[in-house]
Amino acid sequence: MSVSEQVASARRGARALSVTPTADKDRILRAIADVIVANADEILAANAVDVGEAERSGLVAALRKRLILTEQKVASIAESVRSVADLDDPVGRTELRRELDNGLTLTQVRVPIGVIGVIFESRPDALVQIASLAFKSGNAVILKGGKEAVETNRCLYTLLRDAIAADSPQLGDSLQLVETREEIRALLDLDRDIDLMIPRGSNELVRYIQDNTRIPVLGHADGICHVYVHADADADMAVALTRDAKTQYPAVCNAVETLLVHADRADLLPRIVAAMPDVEFRGCPRSTAAAGIAAADDSDWSTEYNDLVLAVRVVDSLDDAVAHINRYGSHHTDAIVTASATDAERFLTRVDSSSVLWNASTRFADGFRYGLGAEVGISTGKIHARGPVGLDGLTTTQYRVTGSGQIVADYADGRKHFTHRDMQ
Amino acid sequence: MSVSEQVASARRGARALSVTPTADKDRILRAIADVIVANADEILAANAVDVGEAERSGLVAALRKRLILTEQKVASIAESVRSVADLDDPVGRTELRRELDNGLTLTQVRVPIGVIGVIFESRPDALVQIASLAFKSGNAVILKGGKEAVETNRCLYTLLRDAIAADSPQLGDSLQLVETREEIRALLDLDRDIDLMIPRGSNELVRYIQDNTRIPVLGHADGICHVYVHADADADMAVALTRDAKTQYPAVCNAVETLLVHADRADLLPRIVAAMPDVEFRGCPRSTAAAGIAAADDSDWSTEYNDLVLAVRVVDSLDDAVAHINRYGSHHTDAIVTASATDAERFLTRVDSSSVLWNASTRFADGFRYGLGAEVGISTGKIHARGPVGLDGLTTTQYRVTGSGQIVADYADGRKHFTHRDMQ
Repeated sequence: MSVSEQVASARRGARALSVTPTADKDRILRAIADVIVANADEILAANAVDVGEAERSGLVAALRKRLILTEQKVASIAESVRSVADLDDPVGRTELRRELDNGLTLTQVRVPIGVIGVIFESRPDALVQIASLAFKSGNAVILKGGKEAVETNRCLYTLLRDAIAADSPQLGDSLQLVETREEIRALLDLDRDIDLMIPRGSNELVRYIQDNTRIPVLGHADGICHVYVHADADADMAVALTRDAKTQYPAVCNAVETLLVHADRADLLPRIVAAMPDVEFRGCPRSTAAAGIAAADDSDWSTEYNDLVLAVRVVDSLDDAVAHINRYGSHHTDAIVTASATDAERFLTRVDSSSVLWNASTRFADGFRYGLGAEVGISTGKIHARGPVGLDGLTTTQYRVTGSGQIVADYADGRKHFTHRDMQ
Repeated sequence: MSVSEQVASARRGARALSVTPTADKDRILRAIADVIVANADEILAANAVDVGEAERSGLVAALRKRLILTEQKVASIAESVRSVADLDDPVGRTELRRELDNGLTLTQVRVPIGVIGVIFESRPDALVQIASLAFKSGNAVILKGGKEAVETNRCLYTLLRDAIAADSPQLGDSLQLVETREEIRALLDLDRDIDLMIPRGSNELVRYIQDNTRIPVLGHADGICHVYVHADADADMAVALTRDAKTQYPAVCNAVETLLVHADRADLLPRIVAAMPDVEFRGCPRSTAAAGIAAADDSDWSTEYNDLVLAVRVVDSLDDAVAHINRYGSHHTDAIVTASATDAERFLTRVDSSSVLWNASTRFADGFRYGLGAEVGISTGKIHARGPVGLDGLTTTQYRVTGSGQIVADYADGRKHFTHRDMQ
C-alpha cells in the first residue's frame, strides 16, 4: 500500500473513530493491554532482534539501553494503556453554550483533530503510548519509529492494530505504520490529508519537518532550560534543585542547560560545583572567578548539551535573568529559586516559556508528572497546545448552531436582535 | 525603520503589554474610541483621498463601496472599540489548577501569544477592529492593510498609536504598520520573532503566506459552504435559509456556494430557483431535470463564487451529503435543514467543518453574531482556534508550577508519590 493510500485509509478510520463512544474506545484500550501481556514473549523476541542488531552496528550505549525491553517493562507498557483508558475523554465536552437569540443556540464542542503523523525515536514504549493517546482522543495516527526499533515497533503495531480490528473492524485503519525516511518525505506532501505532524527527536529532525511541509507541526526543536538562583534563594534548595534538574536524567529536553545566579549569591557556586562532581561546568568571567570553573563562550548560552555539562552565568538582577532566558532559551521550561512570592510572580509572568517553575525542578515539566496521564510530546510553540501535550492537546473544537429557521437578514435589518446569553 | 527593527520593537511592546492590567488596557481602548470621534474630520479627509484614487484607478464598485467611510461609520468604529473594552479579558484566566503533591501546585494560565502579523483588505474599519482585539488580548500586532486604503489606514494607525503612547509610552510599540508587499516578504522570514500570521484576503494571498513562511498561519483560503436540504425539510424554511445564505451578502466567506438537496425533496428546486431571480444556478443532471437550470461541471463543486451563483446537486442520502461536503468543501461552514434531531446530530457530528448549523443560515458563522464581540478572522484549520476567532483565539496558555523545593529524583525513586488532585 502506498503512503497516500495509507493516509486515505487513516482518514476513513478517523471518521469512524471520531463518532465512537468513549465506552467502546476504553474497552478496546483494555483489550490492547491484555493482548500486550498475552504476547509478551513475541514482543521480547522481536526486541531481541533489534537489540542484537544494535550491538552489531555499535549503537551508543545510552540509546541501546533505551531500546531494551524486559518482561517487567512490557507489563508496565500494558499498564500505561489501561491508565489511558481511565482518563476522561475530552471528545464531546461542551466548552461553551450560548443563547444567540430565542430558539437559536451556539455550542462549542471538543472534537478530534483527525489524522496525525507522529515521528518518534528508539524507545519502543513510545509507540504504544502515542497510539493509545491518539486512539482515546479519537484521532487516526500514522506512526514512524526509529529504525533501531523496527522489529519491536512492527510487532507492537501489529498487535495493537489486530486488537482494534478484532473488536471493531472499521477502526483498524485508524492506526498506520510507516518505516522509511522516504515515506516521511511522502507524508509531508499530503497537507490536505494530514492535520498535524508531531516530530519527537533531534533538533535536525524537527527543523527538517518544519521546513518541508505545510502541515502544522507541534513539538520543540530545542530544550534549553534554565534554573535562576535569586538573591534570596535558600542555599540548600538552590543546590538540590540545580543538581536534580541537571543530573537526574541529563539526556532529556527538560534538563537544565544554563544556571543563572544572582551576583549576591555567587558565593553558592563553589557548593553547587562540589555537589555535582560528574558535571563539567562552563562559566562567565564572574563564575570562573567565583568557582574556578572553565570559561564559557557565547555559543554555550544557546547550546542544548543533553549531557553532564552546565553553563553558568552570574547576573545582576531578576530582570537580567529574564532577559537572558527570553533571548537565549528555547521557550521550553525555566525555574526560579526564591523566597519571595513577588519576585517569583515577576519571573513567572515575564519568562516566555511553555512551563515556568518556582522552587521546583525543571524535570517536573512532563505529561505524566503534570497529571495528563501521558504525553505525545512537549510543544514550545504558542499555537494550539503548549507545554506537555496530552489528550486535550490532541483535540480541537467545532461550533454548532441549532436554530429554528433563523436568517441573518432579520438581524442585519434590525427586525431581530441577538441576546448573547451564556447558558450553563 | 526596517521591518526587522519594527518587529523587535513590537516584541518590546508585547512584553510590556502582556503584563499590563485589564483596567489599564480598557482605559486606553476607551481613549482610542474618544480620539477616533474627536478626529473624525481628519479620518474622513484621508479616506476621501483613497476614494478619489479608487475612482481614478477604476477600482470595482463593490470594493470602492467597502472603502468609503461616513461620519456615521466612524462613530460605529469608535463604538466597536468601546465594545472590545467591555469584553472579558482572557489574559490571566486560570484554565487548570492541580495539586501535584503536598506543596507542589500546577496551574495553567491563559497568556497572550506575543507578536502577531495581520494582513487585511480594503475595509479600513478592519484595522481598528484587529488592533483593538490584539491590544485587549495583550498582543503586539503588525498591521498590513490593502493599498486601496493606504491613507485611511495610515491616519487611523497614527491616531491609535499616539493614543496608546500618550497614556503609556512603553505600550506604543505594540502597534506597527507596514505598507508594502516587500515588507510582507520580509515579515515572513522572521519566524523567530513573529508568533502568528493571520492573512485575511484572497485565496491566493493566504496560500502565498502558507507556502512562504515557517510562522504558523491562522485563517482560511476558501469558503466553500453548503446548505443541505434533508428529505423531511420544511419547504418554507429550506427556501428562506438558502436564499439568506446565498443572497444576504454573497461576497463573504460564509455565503453558501453549493446547495445539496435530498432526492425526495427535488420537487423544491423550482421554488428555490423562483425565490432567487438574481441568482445563476448550475446543477447536476437531476437538478437540471427538476428545475430547468444550467448544467454544472465538476469544477463547480469546488468553486467559491463569492457572487450570485449557486451550484445545486441532488443526493440520495444524508450520508451522501456529508461525503460531498467533506470531499469538496473547505471545512468552513455548513448547514442542514431537517425536522429530525437524530439526523441533524448525524450531520453535525460527521461534517468536518469549523461551524455546522441545524436550521439556521450559514451567514451566522461570524464572531459578532456568535457573541465573541468581534473577530480577527475565521480559521478552518484544526490547530489552535477554529471558526470565528475572537479574544480567546489570540491567547495561548502557560503551565506554572509552584513548589517548596521538590526534586524529581524523589518521585522517580519512589520516595514520594504524586497526588494529582484537581483543585477549584
